[in-house]
Amino acid sequence: MQYPSNTKSFGDLRQNMDAYGINPYLQKLFTRCIAFHTVSAPGLFIGVFMVDYALELLGAQAGEKLYAIAETYKCIPDPLQIIAGCTFGNHRLQVIPIGKFAITMNRPSGKDVTDGVRVYVDQRKLKKYPIIEAWYTHSRGFKSATMVFPLIDQILKAGRDILSYQRVRIRVPPKQSWKSVPCTTCGEMVPNTFLEGNHCRGCGSMSYYEILPSNDREYSTSTTGKKGE
Amino acid sequence: MQYPSNTKSFGDLRQNMDAYGINPYLQKLFTRCIAFHTVSAPGLFIGVFMVDYALELLGAQAGEKLYAIAETYKCIPDPLQIIAGCTFGNHRLQVIPIGKFAITMNRPSGKDVTDGVRVYVDQRKLKKYPIIEAWYTHSRGFKSATMVFPLIDQILKAGRDILSYQRVRIRVPPKQSWKSVPCTTCGEMVPNTFLEGNHCRGCGSMSYYEILPSNDREYSTSTTGKKGE
Repeated sequence: MQYPSNTKSFGDLRQNMDAYGINPYLQKLFTRCIAFHTVSAPGLFIGVFMVDYALELLGAQAGEKLYAIAETYKCIPDPLQIIAGCTFGNHRLQVIPIGKFAITMNRPSGKDVTDGVRVYVDQRKLKKYPIIEAWYTHSRGFKSATMVFPLIDQILKAGRDILSYQRVRIRVPPKQSWKSVPCTTCGEMVPNTFLEGNHCRGCGSMSYYEILPSNDREYSTSTTGKKGE
Repeated sequence: MQYPSNTKSFGDLRQNMDAYGINPYLQKLFTRCIAFHTVSAPGLFIGVFMVDYALELLGAQAGEKLYAIAETYKCIPDPLQIIAGCTFGNHRLQVIPIGKFAITMNRPSGKDVTDGVRVYVDQRKLKKYPIIEAWYTHSRGFKSATMVFPLIDQILKAGRDILSYQRVRIRVPPKQSWKSVPCTTCGEMVPNTFLEGNHCRGCGSMSYYEILPSNDREYSTSTTGKKGE
């Protein structure tokens, strides 16, 4: 088995993944995740190893309905979405922004708590991988311009060797009932559980835009908006 | 053109989308988004129309790097990720949970503010579509068991006709510099900007799991974790 010391491009990478003995199934996951993520970021590769490992630890079947938590917004939500079908829009992925490269996965549960598995980058294990450690700890010694491909190289070499896991128990969030109520400021309907006093978050603490004067709010009434009509 | 009054399954749906005059490009987007989302939820269809509309209003080119905000976690983050390449993991999607079916999209900017377009479900326009209105306002009159397919049917009929847009100006979040520091409780490294006093959020306000006694934290040191080895 060859261990190339550098990985210059995604084209090379594929060839190198063969050299590392990474199986075709995992290679396919890398390809799908990179296409979705739009770039081949180092954290994404680690994320693929993490999700694959967590699924194995859970004994999950292909297509099984699972729930996931990511402890950072960086990269790892994407492998969870692509590989495990836990997307933001289907409510099976939650990010708790603790700032760690860690995920927790579990099965659905009708109870208040459920058991799952937490897979994380184990910093004690990074000693063997100085480039990964320099990157992970945001060290000044890590120079992105010259070290990103050696970094990916080391990540592919390491595989799961930088990961550890814990069996964990987590709380299942209760379903909240709600009704739709108008905001007294903008008049739009929002869930009553989202009100801040009498107005919606958009007119309150989560206000994030200013309407520009050149608007034609009625433009879209004149068309059904289906291309090709 | 036929307007079927009900849509019993995704198989039927495809045929009906032809009947509605929805073009092959949009049909392909529906298919890709449903595959990612894992189910064909009503909100997902609206989200596809929203993202397609926003891209057109921006005059976006295929594959152009864009940023997006979704004002709810429900469904619409997924079309933004699949169609526009704005994913959680690549930091080009943000959810501001205001509780509205609305998205804002903009181009990259080196300035403090940038202009974009906000597309939203315009509740004044729902009067023409009573099933969508009943569903959107979470009315007791909406019975999921019997009305979900008539709802999707009405959503496909409506297309962009329930949407409006605004040109908006939004703040560009500043890049925050950070360094990696150890949490005094768990010892793991986290960004200093994520500390709560001396400990990390995971040992503080964002604690979400209890470690079960049956752990073998060292299990993963014994393997590189690559299947097929």
